[in-house]
Amino acid sequence: MSTRILNLELGARSYPIRIGSGLLRDPVSYQLLRGRRAMLVTDENVAQHHLDSVLHALKLPRDQALVLKAGESQKSWEQAGEVLDWMLASRLSRDGALIALGGGVIGDLAGFCASLYQRGIDFVQLPTTLLAQVDSSVGGKTAVNHPRGKNLIGAFHQPIAVVADTDTLATLPPRELRAGLAEVIKYGLLADPILFGWLEKNLDRILALESQFIAETIERCCAIKARIVGLDERESVSGGPRALLNLGHTFGHAIETFTGYSEWLHGEAVAAGMCMAADLSHRMGWIKAVELERATRLLGRVGLPTSPPDGMTPEGFRDLMGLDKKVKGGKLRLVLLRSIGEAVLTADFDEGALHATLEKFCNAGPAHAFAVSI
Amino acid sequence: MSTRILNLELGARSYPIRIGSGLLRDPVSYQLLRGRRAMLVTDENVAQHHLDSVLHALKLPRDQALVLKAGESQKSWEQAGEVLDWMLASRLSRDGALIALGGGVIGDLAGFCASLYQRGIDFVQLPTTLLAQVDSSVGGKTAVNHPRGKNLIGAFHQPIAVVADTDTLATLPPRELRAGLAEVIKYGLLADPILFGWLEKNLDRILALESQFIAETIERCCAIKARIVGLDERESVSGGPRALLNLGHTFGHAIETFTGYSEWLHGEAVAAGMCMAADLSHRMGWIKAVELERATRLLGRVGLPTSPPDGMTPEGFRDLMGLDKKVKGGKLRLVLLRSIGEAVLTADFDEGALHATLEKFCNAGPAHAFAVSI
Repeated sequence: MSTRILNLELGARSYPIRIGSGLLRDPVSYQLLRGRRAMLVTDENVAQHHLDSVLHALKLPRDQALVLKAGESQKSWEQAGEVLDWMLASRLSRDGALIALGGGVIGDLAGFCASLYQRGIDFVQLPTTLLAQVDSSVGGKTAVNHPRGKNLIGAFHQPIAVVADTDTLATLPPRELRAGLAEVIKYGLLADPILFGWLEKNLDRILALESQFIAETIERCCAIKARIVGLDERESVSGGPRALLNLGHTFGHAIETFTGYSEWLHGEAVAAGMCMAADLSHRMGWIKAVELERATRLLGRVGLPTSPPDGMTPEGFRDLMGLDKKVKGGKLRLVLLRSIGEAVLTADFDEGALHATLEKFCNAGPAHAFAVSI
Repeated sequence: MSTRILNLELGARSYPIRIGSGLLRDPVSYQLLRGRRAMLVTDENVAQHHLDSVLHALKLPRDQALVLKAGESQKSWEQAGEVLDWMLASRLSRDGALIALGGGVIGDLAGFCASLYQRGIDFVQLPTTLLAQVDSSVGGKTAVNHPRGKNLIGAFHQPIAVVADTDTLATLPPRELRAGLAEVIKYGLLADPILFGWLEKNLDRILALESQFIAETIERCCAIKARIVGLDERESVSGGPRALLNLGHTFGHAIETFTGYSEWLHGEAVAAGMCMAADLSHRMGWIKAVELERATRLLGRVGLPTSPPDGMTPEGFRDLMGLDKKVKGGKLRLVLLRSIGEAVLTADFDEGALHATLEKFCNAGPAHAFAVSI
């Protein structure tokens, strides 16, 4: 099978995104690192399936790999300190490189450490989840969480290469695959009506992991992300195009905070959040009822939640959305839809409409609630 | 007295450096922050002299200032975590700003926190030591220390403004003033023979804090630093011009590590390190005996140490210089002098000459050792 190669254009910080089957065990994927010292961070779940073949292709001894526990709780200030301790104890020099093998947690944590190690060293993303392959491994956002919220401490640090091996999705728990599809659908909703229609048509083949369809999905999503990141690398505070990638995320972060970042996966919270954003967009008269219906239906077909968990209240949402990074001068800004394929960042939404959306979704009841099915 | 204004040219990240008397209590210094939420970090020594007047000029309530203990030990991963906790607890938003009021420790620590807070917010440097005014506040290097070495964890994050109030030097302990002059002399040695001659001629007026001479000194140094940083913002791994600013620092870091970062000030260690670098440069046949003598004499006139502390051995130096950031592919690179006013970064020095330099300085004995005078 052929390798698809995209380039993220950022001047001196441009880098290739390679997508295809068998890339992790192919030494060609690591040519950029030839002759350089490298160290690798992964987690125990990913290590079980992929670590040996990656180390073999990299010709890296096992003691150059740090295997962390799996889970979002690893993305902490304390854990980042321990990874940095390990790198310093190994005396990695400034021209060495750090490799992240895993999903978004490993990529965000390792990227954060690479950005800080001796004020920044090269790092390579080897994403092994669909979410990481279409979203978090591309664009240079790195971070750890804080008890007060997700990704509140971080850095922009671009990788020097991203290698997305589609074979890794075969060992991914189905629930994580579905969560990744939430971000895939997000790209269609915010930037590409053709992608959205293509997903509606081909969802079953994607869910069945037909490799050409998976590779096509990843390539289309990365192309959108690469274009947006190229326009607005550091998500300008005044609200550049990159903020649009947060469609569904303000509601979603509130859900994740409410559920303690443990019960719901990020993609699941974003799925429910996108339904809420679409509902508000419809109440504003911006998208038609049929568009709201298409968005909600596609997310539902994937098996994703289309409403927040039981127990969340409109007041709870307001409170939890308060510290969100999209708060600007006290006024909440949201990413909403003008149509399927066009998103806008706006503080100019109707308070009453927002209230109605929150009321509706917080009273959706167990029939719509995802909590019953996990 | 007039304000001198330099501009550090870095495209979208350019910023002004204001130098003059009375700037900290002048609201004009803070115009860039007008209408924006700001928080301030300082230490207890600086707070005692300057905090009230700065808060007054900024119209900032006292609870927006965090007063840390003084000292290098504050520049730690754990302390950075606590500053970030404080900022998050105060719900500073992404368009807020952080102000560093103090010397190099406060500037490095606060700048590091500003670079990581929600992936980077604006920060302003209000340096209150000579060392910070001529060096650490300019150029965007931020960091914390690690038990394995100084500044090993950090980020490049440019301030949006630097305000150097020369009045602060009147309350600076004389020993810190002298340590700052080590970096001043460094600029002359590495880049500007005219500055070096001017310092030889006017040292007494500078030591007496004659304000025009102090302002002139800071301006000349900042102009050199701004030019070098403009050429090589991130100190390219392959050895760009910015690495030249590390003249004396490889030897100096070894001294600081040996003395546990507590007995010697950074500038004192750099002073002894520059004497060692000059000695090695002379042994290589690069600078004349008279140039070595001029460099050593000027540092000595300031009252700075011109040799390492008692108890350091050539073997100790080699070991402690091992993890230095200037190690490239296993081969140590040093900044050496071609003449007064011209430095080079090179791995191409004679091992025997280095050995002779280490032997000479480690046996310099108490007559040259600084340890007897502190």
